[in-house]
Amino acid sequence: TTLTRNRQYGQDMEYFDSYSHLKIHHEMLDDKARTLAYQTAIRQNAHLLTDKVILDVGCGTGILSMMCARYGRPKQVYAVEASDIAEYTKDVIHSNKMSDTVTVLHSKVEEVQLEESVDVIISEWMGTILLFEMMVESVLLARDRLLKDGGTLWPSTASLFLVPCSAQKQYGSKMEFWKDQYGFDLSDLIEIAKEEFLQKPVHNHILDPADCLSEASRILNIDMRSVRREDLEQIDLDFEFTVQKSGTLHGFCTWFQVDFEGLDQSIHTVYLNTGPEHELTHWKQNLFLLDSPLSVDKDDVITGQFNLHRNPEWRRHLRVLLRFRVMSSSNNLKVPDREKLFYVWR
Amino acid sequence: TTLTRNRQYGQDMEYFDSYSHLKIHHEMLDDKARTLAYQTAIRQNAHLLTDKVILDVGCGTGILSMMCARYGRPKQVYAVEASDIAEYTKDVIHSNKMSDTVTVLHSKVEEVQLEESVDVIISEWMGTILLFEMMVESVLLARDRLLKDGGTLWPSTASLFLVPCSAQKQYGSKMEFWKDQYGFDLSDLIEIAKEEFLQKPVHNHILDPADCLSEASRILNIDMRSVRREDLEQIDLDFEFTVQKSGTLHGFCTWFQVDFEGLDQSIHTVYLNTGPEHELTHWKQNLFLLDSPLSVDKDDVITGQFNLHRNPEWRRHLRVLLRFRVMSSSNNLKVPDREKLFYVWR
Ligand SMILES: [Ca+2]
Ligand SMILES: [Ca+2]
Repeated sequence: TTLTRNRQYGQDMEYFDSYSHLKIHHEMLDDKARTLAYQTAIRQNAHLLTDKVILDVGCGTGILSMMCARYGRPKQVYAVEASDIAEYTKDVIHSNKMSDTVTVLHSKVEEVQLEESVDVIISEWMGTILLFEMMVESVLLARDRLLKDGGTLWPSTASLFLVPCSAQKQYGSKMEFWKDQYGFDLSDLIEIAKEEFLQKPVHNHILDPADCLSEASRILNIDMRSVRREDLEQIDLDFEFTVQKSGTLHGFCTWFQVDFEGLDQSIHTVYLNTGPEHELTHWKQNLFLLDSPLSVDKDDVITGQFNLHRNPEWRRHLRVLLRFRVMSSSNNLKVPDREKLFYVWR
Repeated sequence: TTLTRNRQYGQDMEYFDSYSHLKIHHEMLDDKARTLAYQTAIRQNAHLLTDKVILDVGCGTGILSMMCARYGRPKQVYAVEASDIAEYTKDVIHSNKMSDTVTVLHSKVEEVQLEESVDVIISEWMGTILLFEMMVESVLLARDRLLKDGGTLWPSTASLFLVPCSAQKQYGSKMEFWKDQYGFDLSDLIEIAKEEFLQKPVHNHILDPADCLSEASRILNIDMRSVRREDLEQIDLDFEFTVQKSGTLHGFCTWFQVDFEGLDQSIHTVYLNTGPEHELTHWKQNLFLLDSPLSVDKDDVITGQFNLHRNPEWRRHLRVLLRFRVMSSSNNLKVPDREKLFYVWR
């Protein structure tokens, strides 16, 4: 319907507009772990990029396209960018004397027409909880329409990790805070504090590995070559954790890893992991705080589901339904089913 | 006109709405230097608050009103709050058993009708560059309409400070950044970086005292008892600085001080200073970056104007026109007149 189209149009405008500001590009470029992972993948495969046709989906300031042009000898790099930064990216490519190789297309990738199909699609599409913004959908559409059979996608796989964790400082500063301020009791504000601070994940959490209550679990692994768009509408994931040390469970944390497979078997896979044991990235980690924390003991087992659903209306937004229970090591039910819905962000 | 009234209405809604969220109240309460300055003023004057009528303009969560009720023995505290937090503040007052003394009025202060005039107006109205949000106007209107002759305003005076400074890290990370990223030249983005990062002051700057190029100057001092609202429409301020050490002038920094005079002569004045030599507050310092830095030498003299004008249309917003020149110690013109307009925030 026209209404649906208009709504989708408005959502895309909101999304692309945010990338017409430099701040977000500054943050991404300034994220060395992120940008150098792409650079390493390109450099390790440089000799195999000779004469290849490369498509950079959402090229931003053009950094990945320029890396491909500099380190490989590609026939052509198509650098596609829907936001208005594209007009400046054209100048950047020109100033770096790469206009022969890199062609900037100011367009949605869904609307570009290329004269040839491409050997490699490179894109940095990852967001909060891996999928927020759902830019991955544009990459998959480009794959189906523009990538040669047997072509390469960078990243080639993407995984989501989950861990139960303590977060005393965050929970305390947002919730316990109201119990006593300067000797006064502000507990009447706790209800709205819950609504305001706990309904959405904390997107810029920095997880201390010491706060992990168990080993992290890889709950999702996407093969970019085979995943279908419809597979990403509703992703229902099971988890089971064995508690490794007694402590307070304040919630669960997520992060992701993406892999860049080599263009042939001889090349090592390069990976970018945004977890707490790795260099901090601009994605940080994402914390899902429970409304009320609970105590867990060593060898307790936490089982449940992490249901990651696309918002049917705001298509770039997600909802996470978290359900879990805790069993003691002697298999008694310690904490019966709990359930909480999170908005990311609508 | 109706149009003007509607526009003003929309601006007020935007403003009050931001205070209906807890985040901003959390930040203010968490600012101990701020909140304890008010507490100290109240406690030092506690014995003089007996039987007084106090008006708290923009009471938020009610913290200052409760301090007045706890430490003094006021006849009555009127706690006025226009944002929707007021409904929760009523509960807070009730839970703290202060409903006899503290009356929460969910209203703009311009619209409250009191049965009596008040002895003391207490308010935390200060914003970025002291005046942003122009909440001070509501305090002055309350003063003219509701304060007894010879009554007390807390704060009683407010000053703005200015200093020329270096800010290599901030300037470098926003401007020089683009000259080389991963071996590529992104200088074509510098023009939009200027527009995006330098047209507004950096509102959350933390000024290292070592980056001050001269003594700070108190360029404005407002006497809350006598200042008229119309005095604050266009504030044109002159400054003169003698450079104390050679270095790079990246811009100018502001911060403020407010004083709480005692209710009688025997009480020491309490002050809250948000400058770099004092405890960091949530206001931090405000940095006005020049488009291009310049070198200054010891004993150079920087003279100019800091013109702080209310946006005639967006009445809670400000514009700062900064003009200056640099003379050498031998009185030669080293840097002819420079001029730059800043938006705070529209
Ligand atoms: Ca991203
Ligand atoms: Ca304020």
